[in-house]
Amino acid sequence: MSAKRERLIYLPLGGAGEIGMNAYVYGYGPEGKERLILVDLGIAFPDMDTTPGVDIILPDISWLLANLNRLEAVFITHGHEDHLGGVGHLYPQLKKPIHARKFTANLARRKLQEKGQDPKAVVTAEPFPAMIDAGPFKVGFLPVSHSIPESGALVIDTPAGRIIHTGDFKIDRAPVVGEAFDADLWAEASKPGVRALVCDSTNVFSKHEGRSESEVAPNLIPLVASAKGMFVATTFASNVARLKSLADAGVAAGRSICLMGRAMRRMTEAAVEEGILTDFPRTISPEDAASLPRENLMLIVTGSQGERRAASAQLSRGKYFGMELKDGDTFLFSSKTIPGNEKDVARIMNNLSELGVDVVTDEDGLYHVSGHANRPDLETVHRIVDPQIVIPMHGEHRHLREHAKLAEATGRIGVVAPNGTMLELSGNQPKVVDHVETGRTYLDGSALVGQFDGVVRDRIRMALNGHVVVAVMVDDDDQILEDTWVDIRGLPELARGSASLASMMEEHLAGQLARADTRTAGDDEKLEDLIVKGVRKVAQDEVGKRPEVTVLITRLTAE
Amino acid sequence: MSAKRERLIYLPLGGAGEIGMNAYVYGYGPEGKERLILVDLGIAFPDMDTTPGVDIILPDISWLLANLNRLEAVFITHGHEDHLGGVGHLYPQLKKPIHARKFTANLARRKLQEKGQDPKAVVTAEPFPAMIDAGPFKVGFLPVSHSIPESGALVIDTPAGRIIHTGDFKIDRAPVVGEAFDADLWAEASKPGVRALVCDSTNVFSKHEGRSESEVAPNLIPLVASAKGMFVATTFASNVARLKSLADAGVAAGRSICLMGRAMRRMTEAAVEEGILTDFPRTISPEDAASLPRENLMLIVTGSQGERRAASAQLSRGKYFGMELKDGDTFLFSSKTIPGNEKDVARIMNNLSELGVDVVTDEDGLYHVSGHANRPDLETVHRIVDPQIVIPMHGEHRHLREHAKLAEATGRIGVVAPNGTMLELSGNQPKVVDHVETGRTYLDGSALVGQFDGVVRDRIRMALNGHVVVAVMVDDDDQILEDTWVDIRGLPELARGSASLASMMEEHLAGQLARADTRTAGDDEKLEDLIVKGVRKVAQDEVGKRPEVTVLITRLTAE
Repeated sequence: MSAKRERLIYLPLGGAGEIGMNAYVYGYGPEGKERLILVDLGIAFPDMDTTPGVDIILPDISWLLANLNRLEAVFITHGHEDHLGGVGHLYPQLKKPIHARKFTANLARRKLQEKGQDPKAVVTAEPFPAMIDAGPFKVGFLPVSHSIPESGALVIDTPAGRIIHTGDFKIDRAPVVGEAFDADLWAEASKPGVRALVCDSTNVFSKHEGRSESEVAPNLIPLVASAKGMFVATTFASNVARLKSLADAGVAAGRSICLMGRAMRRMTEAAVEEGILTDFPRTISPEDAASLPRENLMLIVTGSQGERRAASAQLSRGKYFGMELKDGDTFLFSSKTIPGNEKDVARIMNNLSELGVDVVTDEDGLYHVSGHANRPDLETVHRIVDPQIVIPMHGEHRHLREHAKLAEATGRIGVVAPNGTMLELSGNQPKVVDHVETGRTYLDGSALVGQFDGVVRDRIRMALNGHVVVAVMVDDDDQILEDTWVDIRGLPELARGSASLASMMEEHLAGQLARADTRTAGDDEKLEDLIVKGVRKVAQDEVGKRPEVTVLITRLTAE
Repeated sequence: MSAKRERLIYLPLGGAGEIGMNAYVYGYGPEGKERLILVDLGIAFPDMDTTPGVDIILPDISWLLANLNRLEAVFITHGHEDHLGGVGHLYPQLKKPIHARKFTANLARRKLQEKGQDPKAVVTAEPFPAMIDAGPFKVGFLPVSHSIPESGALVIDTPAGRIIHTGDFKIDRAPVVGEAFDADLWAEASKPGVRALVCDSTNVFSKHEGRSESEVAPNLIPLVASAKGMFVATTFASNVARLKSLADAGVAAGRSICLMGRAMRRMTEAAVEEGILTDFPRTISPEDAASLPRENLMLIVTGSQGERRAASAQLSRGKYFGMELKDGDTFLFSSKTIPGNEKDVARIMNNLSELGVDVVTDEDGLYHVSGHANRPDLETVHRIVDPQIVIPMHGEHRHLREHAKLAEATGRIGVVAPNGTMLELSGNQPKVVDHVETGRTYLDGSALVGQFDGVVRDRIRMALNGHVVVAVMVDDDDQILEDTWVDIRGLPELARGSASLASMMEEHLAGQLARADTRTAGDDEKLEDLIVKGVRKVAQDEVGKRPEVTVLITRLTAE
């Protein structure tokens, strides 16, 4: 009876091979019995192409749930939805302590409260060098700059060495709100030697050094000062530093500040509660704003990504909380458009254009900076941390691959490990030891639906092909009754010769069914098959479509 | 009895207020009896957000069809799908001569032939100063550079003055294939005085002077020369100059050239037939290519926008016509990603990354140039043409508005006239004289479907909400028979308590229907209403969705 060799494992369940829904597992212990911690539990956002009607997308954490007795704790690096957003939805299944720094913890508690969960599950963490015990791990929150306050890289000590998990970060030495990137502190944390740097890859293709948040304010001030009518700015609500720069520019131009959109108020509230935002200008309500001359007003609003229900979209369509934009107003996108949102953002810009509003974007890099480390910044962090292994995360496959190449260019080991790849990090060389089933879970209305359950696939098929419903009745002698009923949805009503498409299908089926033998009529499957084929033939011939078909067979029984 | 005053009108039916499906009407004559010409007849492409399952989008030309006896002819400025693509589909309704320059005419004839129409409807036009008579109009094709050979601006002479309609254009003095921008010729055409310049607005937000197609080749040569494995390049098939630059770079690097994708072959074929492409390197078939060492091979392929069935996407997913990409190959996007296509393009890049293929994009502006005039180029053309009025077209509303402001900055009259705006251009000032119903017609399978017919709206609703079908039988005494049948599609099978959602609906309806009085049971509308509400209540309570509902009521009649 020999004790199994102990090992250190890394397993991304979300966020590696995509940008969104981050969830990374670390484990240490005997093979198959490693004690586990989870880093981040984020969400991704749906789109019509792949997830119509879905509310949010969560990582599939089945593997973790199957090994729940091995899970020690959850650590959340920062408050962005793609890192924190899953906490409210999945905590009920996890029921483990959630560690985060105070601002993130504030947001996490709100998430739990919204879902009727106990906010005490969230434990506020002090920054590194403080370390939290979690089974075989000690975990410290190493402050780092990002586009939200109090982002923390994690210093993860294991019996097989130290890991640094960056979370999302940038190198910003003057971030306006919150902590600057502290190279000395990072060097200090790296001094004992770092086995693996698990590192943000978002901006690996951006060649120039990243810019500081503090570079934005000097450009905002003259822009706002020179505006004539109302000034509206949109940005990510969680970018508290930007909110402050915008509001300060407004005040400098003699404008009162009004925040619009729930997230905007939630974020500033949390930042004030935690003492991060101490000198934010006084804001006024939309009701009070409505009574001010428009040239004395600045709105800071949600919806920079074109979200249809957010304040930006609402304002672009007309009156919203008594506010209405018009000729001579200015609307600033102090943001970048996330790939995939271009059309939604353009829709708002065009609506604003129709109202006569001047739209200002970040086209020239004046009014926005990224929250992620660019390629030279990644090189800087590689150099400071000096890890043996670099494991790129928080990126699509192409980002991970490029980042691994970057690490290898300076003689480190770079490993591309997409979601589901279990890496052992304790041997001489990192090694893939398992592949775990991963994927996406959809919050669809109030139900959690698996990516492969077919629910969303069926919806997509109906959207592409239309849906035909056929009701047929069979008597107890397996004779098909004559009034077969066809109902079409999402197909043209009229066939080629301007006859009703549904009637043509009914006629075609009537003919087919009249010829059907009792063996077919008596067998639901055969009968359905016959009907589906008949419907599709008519649809193909008449309108060139291949619809989804539902057949309802009612068998009348003699009483 | 006084003769009505004659007037000159402009009426965009597509392309003004959007990028895509261009269709512009000009008219001259007594009010309401103007003789008409149509400039361009393009298509737009569908997306899942607004047009799932649709094949292509055509402008709604109902107004033109209602006034068909007034239409003299159709003029096509160039061969891009958003200008030419509607010809095959709508010619059968128009049956008017189609004028185009020889390369465009070649493509137009192919479109007619594909639809079984007589290609002789297409008349090949000689370039300006040649002019074509069309009722009160004389129309000349003024050569201009663009990203396809033989683009023509239109010189439109009317009794109320000369109009120049630019079509799509750029200022390129060395376009590699086809005619350079000839400022002298444009000045010549403008000499008699130009009443209105109807002008491409696509790149009005691009601040720097546009770059020449000839700047791309010198960057391609070293890129291809330094590549190790197979080299694959994708670009717009219609950019014949780019195809040539790519192929030349391949040959210079000792590679054989293989074209993949139907559009790629169609375009080169047409260009060779019309004598535009005289020295394109010899190409080989995919079959022959498969037997060559990969370092001696260059593929030029369709699908630069991520189209799922095009060659790029196919190659990124695996074997295609015997070709298979692997580690060490290079894939060049010699193109820009059109807004809205980002995710589809990224999908291909990530697939390629998984195969180990190095992806090169135009990030640094080395391997692609735009086909449209940038802001300074627009200013140049305004100056050369020196029109009284500038009417921006080929742009979303924000482009039109910006372009009109640009014109006004130099003392011209700028008019924003989105689709459906009928402008009179013959008075002292341009004046909106009518608003015409415009919109989109969908080619959906083989049927033409109106934007507001509800067909696509129903499909979108099913995609968002799911679809529940209920079949209920009522006997001839208006008694509801017990076996009400519910079928769900696109909703979770299981309700909250893991019971079947369909069964829960059946039970709920059974209870409701048992209580229904005969007045409800005897009235299809009331019965349907009751059932829809019942289904939605269960769906809302159990899974938080509000599905589409189809109710099939079968009334049994005693024989």
